Amino acid sequence: MVDSGSPADTVQEVSEREALKRIFPRLPESSATLVGPGDDAAVLAAPDGRYVVTTDMMVHGPDFRLAWSSAEDLGWKAAATNLSDVAAMGAVPTALVVAIAAPPSLPVSALEAFADGLRAACAALAPGCGVVGGDLSVSGTLTIAVTAFGDLEGRAPVLRSGARPGDVVAVSGRLGSAAAGLRLLFAEAVDSDGTPDADAFARVVAAHPELIDAQLRPRPPVADGPLAADAGATAMLDLSDGLALDARRVAEASGVAIDLDPATLGGDPLTALTGGEDHGLLACFPAGTVLPGGFHPVGVVRAGSGLLVGGRAFDERGGWDPYLEWDGAAG
Amino acid sequence: MVDSGSPADTVQEVSEREALKRIFPRLPESSATLVGPGDDAAVLAAPDGRYVVTTDMMVHGPDFRLAWSSAEDLGWKAAATNLSDVAAMGAVPTALVVAIAAPPSLPVSALEAFADGLRAACAALAPGCGVVGGDLSVSGTLTIAVTAFGDLEGRAPVLRSGARPGDVVAVSGRLGSAAAGLRLLFAEAVDSDGTPDADAFARVVAAHPELIDAQLRPRPPVADGPLAADAGATAMLDLSDGLALDARRVAEASGVAIDLDPATLGGDPLTALTGGEDHGLLACFPAGTVLPGGFHPVGVVRAGSGLLVGGRAFDERGGWDPYLEWDGAAG
Repeated sequence: MVDSGSPADTVQEVSEREALKRIFPRLPESSATLVGPGDDAAVLAAPDGRYVVTTDMMVHGPDFRLAWSSAEDLGWKAAATNLSDVAAMGAVPTALVVAIAAPPSLPVSALEAFADGLRAACAALAPGCGVVGGDLSVSGTLTIAVTAFGDLEGRAPVLRSGARPGDVVAVSGRLGSAAAGLRLLFAEAVDSDGTPDADAFARVVAAHPELIDAQLRPRPPVADGPLAADAGATAMLDLSDGLALDARRVAEASGVAIDLDPATLGGDPLTALTGGEDHGLLACFPAGTVLPGGFHPVGVVRAGSGLLVGGRAFDERGGWDPYLEWDGAAG
Repeated sequence: MVDSGSPADTVQEVSEREALKRIFPRLPESSATLVGPGDDAAVLAAPDGRYVVTTDMMVHGPDFRLAWSSAEDLGWKAAATNLSDVAAMGAVPTALVVAIAAPPSLPVSALEAFADGLRAACAALAPGCGVVGGDLSVSGTLTIAVTAFGDLEGRAPVLRSGARPGDVVAVSGRLGSAAAGLRLLFAEAVDSDGTPDADAFARVVAAHPELIDAQLRPRPPVADGPLAADAGATAMLDLSDGLALDARRVAEASGVAIDLDPATLGGDPLTALTGGEDHGLLACFPAGTVLPGGFHPVGVVRAGSGLLVGGRAFDERGGWDPYLEWDGAAG
C-alpha cells in the first residue's frame, strides 16, 4: 500500500524524492515519450525529424497571486500559455517539462493540485501531450518554468514574418476578456486597502465567471494552430501581449502594415486592442481563404508599415512589459 | 550605429525588448537551429527522429550567491550542469532554452555577462550547442531555468537501469572537488559574521583556484557521455548529488548492488562519496571493456542491492536535498 501522505505536509517536511513520488502519478502522460521521467533526461519522438520548443516563466507577484489563483489554476495556465505558443507555429503540442521553485512552507497538496491542473489543461486543450520531466527547487518566491514541445507533422512552421499585402488578418479566440478579468480582480477582488481578499474574490467569480476564467484558466484554441497552417496561413502568433502590440510585431517582422477593422473588435475595442493574455491566435491568410476552425476576420494586410485601426495609425502602446510595469512594492 | 547602452542600465530602466536586443548577439548559436529566437517557438532538427530533454532550475540563495558567483559564472554553471545531464544519456548536446527572472535592479550588463557565460560553456564543453530561445521575467529572487536538448545520433539512450552483476563501475571527472570548494566558500569566503565577503572570497580563490572553479565553473566531461554509450555502457548518470547517493540510484534502478573500491576515491574518500555537484559521469561497463575518454574504474556491480564500499554496506546519506537542507534564514 502506498502511503499517500497527509494533505498538510509541507515540501520542507517531506524529502524531494517523497514529494516527486506523490506528484508523478498525477501528471499527464505524453504519447511522444520514449524514455520518461526518472532518468537524467527524457527521450522524445520527433517523427518528422524536427521539433518545436518554447519556454515561459511565471513568478508569484508579477504573473499571479495565490490569493486569486488556486494551485490547480496555476497548473492549468502554465500549461495553456505554453501550448498556445506551440500551436502558433502550426504544431501539435506533444510534451512539457516543468520546473518549480517553491517556498519550504508550501503544502505538498498544492503541488499535487498543480499537477492536476497541468493534467486537466493537457486533456482539454492538447490530448496526448504530457509531462516528461521536471525539477523541484526551493525559493522564497514561488516560480514556475515550463518548456513545451510540439510536432509539425510535416508542416512548414508558420512564422511572424510571412504576411503579405492583401492577406486577411484573422483571430481565433476572444479578445480582451483576460484583461477585463484582470481589471475586475484588481478593482473588486480586494479589501478596502487594495489587498487581494478571498471573500471579495468569491463575489467577483460568481458575478463574472467567464471573464475571471479567461484570466485564470485561459482556453487557447490550440487545435486551430495546425488547422491554420494547413489552410495556408502566411504568418501567425499567440496573442499574449495584446492585439495591438502583437499585430505590430507581425507587421514589423513581415515588412507590411496591418489594418484592423474596429467593427470586428466587440463592444470595448480599446480593451480588445490593448489587453494582454488573450492567448488566442492571430493569423494572416491569403485573400479568399476559407478561414478554418474558430478564426474570424479582423482586418487586412497592406503595403506599408505599422498598425492601423480603421485606416488610421494606432500608436497606443498597449501590451505588457514586465520590467516597465511591475510595481515591486505591490508584489 | 547600434546604441549599446550603458553598463549601469538596470533591467527596469530599459524595456524587455531592449534588454533582449542587447543579450541576443552574445548568445551561442546552435547548429541544430531551423527557426531561431524571435518567433513564438524555435524549431530544431532531430536527425534521428528522437531528441533528449532535461530541465533544471537555479535559485539565488539555495543554489548560488551573487557574492561568490559572477554573472558569467552563473551562465557557465547553468549551461554546464544541463549539458552534463544530456551527456549522461549518451547524447550530444545541441541546444538550450533559458528563462531568467531577475530583480528590476539587476544591471543589463549582468544579463550580458550571463550570456557570455552560456557562450563560453557551450564553446568549451559542447561546441555546436547554442541558445535557441528564452524568457525574461521579473522577480525579487534571481532565478534561472535552463532546458537542454541533445541528439543521440542513432545511439540507444543509456539509462540508470541497465547495470548488470560483473560490470565495472567507472567515473569520469574529479570526485569531491566541488564540495571541497563549497566548504571553503562557507568557511573562509565570509566575514566574521559568516556573511559572504568579496575580499575574503578573493583570498580563497587565490589559494584554491581549482577547488573554487570546480564549484563555480564546473567542467563536466560532456564528450565522454557519447563515448561511453559507444563503448557499450550499460548504465550512466550525471554525478550531481554525490557519488554515494547517485550510485545508490543506479543500484536501485538496475536491481543490483554497487561495490566501490575506497582505494580509488583519493585522499578524502568521504568527501568523494558524499560531496555533491561533481557533474562527472558515473557509468557501468561490461567487464573487460577498454574504458573510453576520462573514465577510470571505481568499483564493480554485484548481485544484491544497495551501496557497498570495500564490500561493506555504506549507509551515510550524502547528497543534497533542497527542502531538507535549505536554511531559509541564511538565504
